[in-house]
Amino acid sequence: MQKVLITTVPFGDKDRLPLEILENNNIEFLINPLNKKLTEDELVELVPSFDVIIAGTELITKKVMDSALNLKMISRVGIGLDSVDLLEAERQGVIVSYTPDAPAPAVSELTVGLMLTLLRSVQLSNMEMHNGKWHRFFGRRLSETTIGIIGVGRIGLGVLRHLQGFGPIKILLNDIAPNHDLVKKFNIEWVDKEKIYQQADIVTIHVPLTSKTKNMVKSTQLLNMKKDAIIINTARGGIINEHDLYNVLQAGHLSGAAIDVFDLEPYNGKLQDIKRCVLTAHMGSMSFDCRARMEIEATEEAVRFLTNQPLRSIVPEEEYAVQREGL
Amino acid sequence: MQKVLITTVPFGDKDRLPLEILENNNIEFLINPLNKKLTEDELVELVPSFDVIIAGTELITKKVMDSALNLKMISRVGIGLDSVDLLEAERQGVIVSYTPDAPAPAVSELTVGLMLTLLRSVQLSNMEMHNGKWHRFFGRRLSETTIGIIGVGRIGLGVLRHLQGFGPIKILLNDIAPNHDLVKKFNIEWVDKEKIYQQADIVTIHVPLTSKTKNMVKSTQLLNMKKDAIIINTARGGIINEHDLYNVLQAGHLSGAAIDVFDLEPYNGKLQDIKRCVLTAHMGSMSFDCRARMEIEATEEAVRFLTNQPLRSIVPEEEYAVQREGL
Repeated sequence: MQKVLITTVPFGDKDRLPLEILENNNIEFLINPLNKKLTEDELVELVPSFDVIIAGTELITKKVMDSALNLKMISRVGIGLDSVDLLEAERQGVIVSYTPDAPAPAVSELTVGLMLTLLRSVQLSNMEMHNGKWHRFFGRRLSETTIGIIGVGRIGLGVLRHLQGFGPIKILLNDIAPNHDLVKKFNIEWVDKEKIYQQADIVTIHVPLTSKTKNMVKSTQLLNMKKDAIIINTARGGIINEHDLYNVLQAGHLSGAAIDVFDLEPYNGKLQDIKRCVLTAHMGSMSFDCRARMEIEATEEAVRFLTNQPLRSIVPEEEYAVQREGL
Repeated sequence: MQKVLITTVPFGDKDRLPLEILENNNIEFLINPLNKKLTEDELVELVPSFDVIIAGTELITKKVMDSALNLKMISRVGIGLDSVDLLEAERQGVIVSYTPDAPAPAVSELTVGLMLTLLRSVQLSNMEMHNGKWHRFFGRRLSETTIGIIGVGRIGLGVLRHLQGFGPIKILLNDIAPNHDLVKKFNIEWVDKEKIYQQADIVTIHVPLTSKTKNMVKSTQLLNMKKDAIIINTARGGIINEHDLYNVLQAGHLSGAAIDVFDLEPYNGKLQDIKRCVLTAHMGSMSFDCRARMEIEATEEAVRFLTNQPLRSIVPEEEYAVQREGL
């Protein structure tokens, strides 16, 4: 009997359907017994007898695959592939699928929520009020700002759409493959990243983590931003250098930041000391509907693999090229 | 020389223009020296020698007007008139103007920000993360909810517009004067308030405080709401009964609340103990642009009055009717 290891947690928690899909297909499965994001060594320990991993964002390296003697398929719950060594998977004949569309709507909504929270100092006022302090913070409306979106894929485009209901906002976009049709559809401008750092009041990052985007935002970029600008990362830890962000905020530059993703998760680091840095626990995709869709899609793909049906969301060649060529 | 008392604070703080308008017209003024919302007695003490009050939300009662021997005009910075005894002003021949349009855009944006904060537990995750705790909260997207807007004037309509960028959302509206054209323009339904309490996942209040709306939302209404619903008040304290809201939240009903306005401001009360109740310090209109526009408009109207020019935003008869008839 073939066995599935589910590493991402929580799983099947709010909606049991993905577990029922496995049960109905008589597929044996184990949900991550440590109930936290696994380290490489923990995964090496767990993985030997499994045929398929339904995976979160934990690292699936050569070392993991070397110890996973039966592994034939990885079904990623989500879109990011920075955690999977695709080239090693290819060498070992392990198929990788993912769920690229499912998480986007939840991430883009959270991003706009974080913009409004930071612009109006909601988190600061809330903390003060709960301590009996009354101070009326001034803030800015979205139309008073210039917003820079770096990475205009599914999520960046969602952010752009959400902003349409807030009146005229100056929006600057950057992507390695700019879609010039957007200029006709929305009031936007394609610019280079440097112009976004210099001119935007809000910079929000929606690129994947690759060798090219790792440390994309360091001290130089942060210090090029306006003194009262805001930066938001709901993409992946490591794209903004955490150490540099801490130092720059600590030195009084930037009016705020919102960070949902971290180098090492669960996060426990110095950004905790900075009140104007809103911190959330990698919750971008954690809406009931998106999370359910991600879990169901990844499970269905695993079942298709195990029952010899055609797969529907195999990771495309471009993603391998990203890792091969460091695009 | 005629004298203006400015009671609302902060004033001319981020943008000196309103103060310059007064200076350029050689009008003597005093900004509230207590630098907080004045009580009736404090205002009685301050007011005797002034001709015009540029007013915040402090109570301007018969007692205040009786001691304001020179008072000829009240220019309200904002839209709400619950604080001003309009009928007494009429009896004493005191003219009242206001700035009904200026605050709306900032209030409606904050309201949508509070919706997204509560739906995704941003304030809870932020507090936990700053204490080194990592818990991935599940949340809901706006499209997964039914949103009820009670009061569809300038602000309620703004909320409705902002929501248009978030995909299809079921929206229920209630107003004493429903605008049926909105049905053609947006995907909405006009319903009675009871249906909103019963069916909405998010209830947001945008009515003025009148004798009819005071305590509009009490235990009965709160308990009629879904167990995991959210309620938001960025309108006026007293529309939701604070005591009942505390008891209902304390008993475990409702998944969250966001309260920006209070019976007594500065607020210092029991809602502080409830973490899933986001509290902000009457910051609805506190965006730089809206606050500046409110202060400038109210100042310009006061200057028009003092220089015998025609006024532009005298409070209309309907507002007097509200107080006369308790509409």
